[in-house]
Amino acid sequence: MTEAVLVIIDPATKQPQGASPGDRLRLADPAEPQIRVTDLGITRGDGIFETFGVFDGEIQAMQPHLARLARSARMLDLPELDLEVIEEGVRLAVREHESVPQLSVKLVVTRGIEGIEDPTAWALAFVGEDYSGRQHNGLKVVTLDRGYRHDVAQTSPWLLQGAKTLSYALNKAVIREAKRRGADEVIFISSDGYVLEGPNSTVIMRVDQSFVTPRTDQGILEGTTQHALFGIVESLGYRSEYRYVMKDELDRADGVWLVSSGQQLSPVVELDGRPLVRDIELDQALLKRLMARTD
Amino acid sequence: MTEAVLVIIDPATKQPQGASPGDRLRLADPAEPQIRVTDLGITRGDGIFETFGVFDGEIQAMQPHLARLARSARMLDLPELDLEVIEEGVRLAVREHESVPQLSVKLVVTRGIEGIEDPTAWALAFVGEDYSGRQHNGLKVVTLDRGYRHDVAQTSPWLLQGAKTLSYALNKAVIREAKRRGADEVIFISSDGYVLEGPNSTVIMRVDQSFVTPRTDQGILEGTTQHALFGIVESLGYRSEYRYVMKDELDRADGVWLVSSGQQLSPVVELDGRPLVRDIELDQALLKRLMARTD
Repeated sequence: MTEAVLVIIDPATKQPQGASPGDRLRLADPAEPQIRVTDLGITRGDGIFETFGVFDGEIQAMQPHLARLARSARMLDLPELDLEVIEEGVRLAVREHESVPQLSVKLVVTRGIEGIEDPTAWALAFVGEDYSGRQHNGLKVVTLDRGYRHDVAQTSPWLLQGAKTLSYALNKAVIREAKRRGADEVIFISSDGYVLEGPNSTVIMRVDQSFVTPRTDQGILEGTTQHALFGIVESLGYRSEYRYVMKDELDRADGVWLVSSGQQLSPVVELDGRPLVRDIELDQALLKRLMARTD
Repeated sequence: MTEAVLVIIDPATKQPQGASPGDRLRLADPAEPQIRVTDLGITRGDGIFETFGVFDGEIQAMQPHLARLARSARMLDLPELDLEVIEEGVRLAVREHESVPQLSVKLVVTRGIEGIEDPTAWALAFVGEDYSGRQHNGLKVVTLDRGYRHDVAQTSPWLLQGAKTLSYALNKAVIREAKRRGADEVIFISSDGYVLEGPNSTVIMRVDQSFVTPRTDQGILEGTTQHALFGIVESLGYRSEYRYVMKDELDRADGVWLVSSGQQLSPVVELDGRPLVRDIELDQALLKRLMARTD
């Protein structure tokens, strides 16, 4: 196992900008404690994150990840982030890591120490989970009620739906519930019956010649991998569509996938106990293009 | 300002139990980093907590807090916790702290390092916020939609409603929303109109000679301070009641309070911009008894 590389980042925009980006980054040992027990990241899950996929040293979707991080920061009223310093921190973690075919970088920004609230941030480059099993054999998925109406991000923005926060205990709990039901993964359904997202992924379905993903105005994340996939399917002659998707449309789809920066693309082969159709050739073509892209 | 005292706890039940409780506790410096960046407490808000009130060296409601911690642990499928060691950790933090009239102890248990998942835990004794302003002058409160139906804990237990988790970013966001609206605090209302709880407190209302709090089968926390308060009001000749409470009943109540282990009891003097009646003598009598109790 290769060693993870940790870069501690001083992420808030400073006025005036005295220090160069390099002065605001430092390498640290991820096996040693780095966080104080009064950091709001750990006492309140009060922070945000992004996970970057890195294939053969190429960091995917850098700008979409940074843009989403900035959106999450605004939703949490965090101080303005210096995206240039953060980008350099992610790149430094990758450069300092042993060269491997596949790497993940987890970038975290917390609100910082309670009472001081100068953000804490770091980038951790590590060899993640091996996703080849789910990519090739597919996933058994159960749908679970997310409890919120599909329009809750509009009506109740304080619920932080659509922000990628550290408050992810629920996203881990639903995976345990899936496993209790003999499945691997989850697709959330709104309390009024709309398909939302996975706890760590975007949902894609194919209906005839069209690839469809749920609209992000339902308090779900804009998927960086989904965005790249839509470019790929369009280049292959398919249409792509963002729209509201009801649960029964998912049941009848010609194909369903979960996509994310780690797994890239995994076909859903069973939904709530029923087998789903699968086009292995298409799955493999899409996965190959996704992993080879430079965006 | 007095120095906070930090006790690191090894909290999981060990089989066979070799070590004595003392061997599983150690004092550490809260000003130094103690947590690794791969701890699921910080990367996923995947853990639980309790906050103990300590008045003149007396730790309040030790057993109710430990029982609630154990319930939260079960809801998160954490390993079984050794409550005896945890209790001793809380007591040690208090003993090692300088003697002060009012102290808080924050107890945290996380799922531990990702991939290892041996829980991380600590107790931090510190002089908390000064609540005398809110206790004596009262609180301006706004009601905000919690987004969930009142029965969501029954229908969708994977949403972890009713567990006191570290995933509290939302509980901080709603306080910012309250401040934007010129208020101090929040009472959550379910999407179907039931009064739930505050982001860090239990809601109490008085209707004539009865003190009422919302039933906890609505995915809200059992309040340790509320429980003590009900004992006190009964000894004063009032009735007490756990039941469903609709929003309009709150508007018409003869008194509304928020209670928690830190603030103990604060009267609500304004609700959604409308002044509420207040009985200062009663407020003061209840607060005095709450702070003097030993339970």
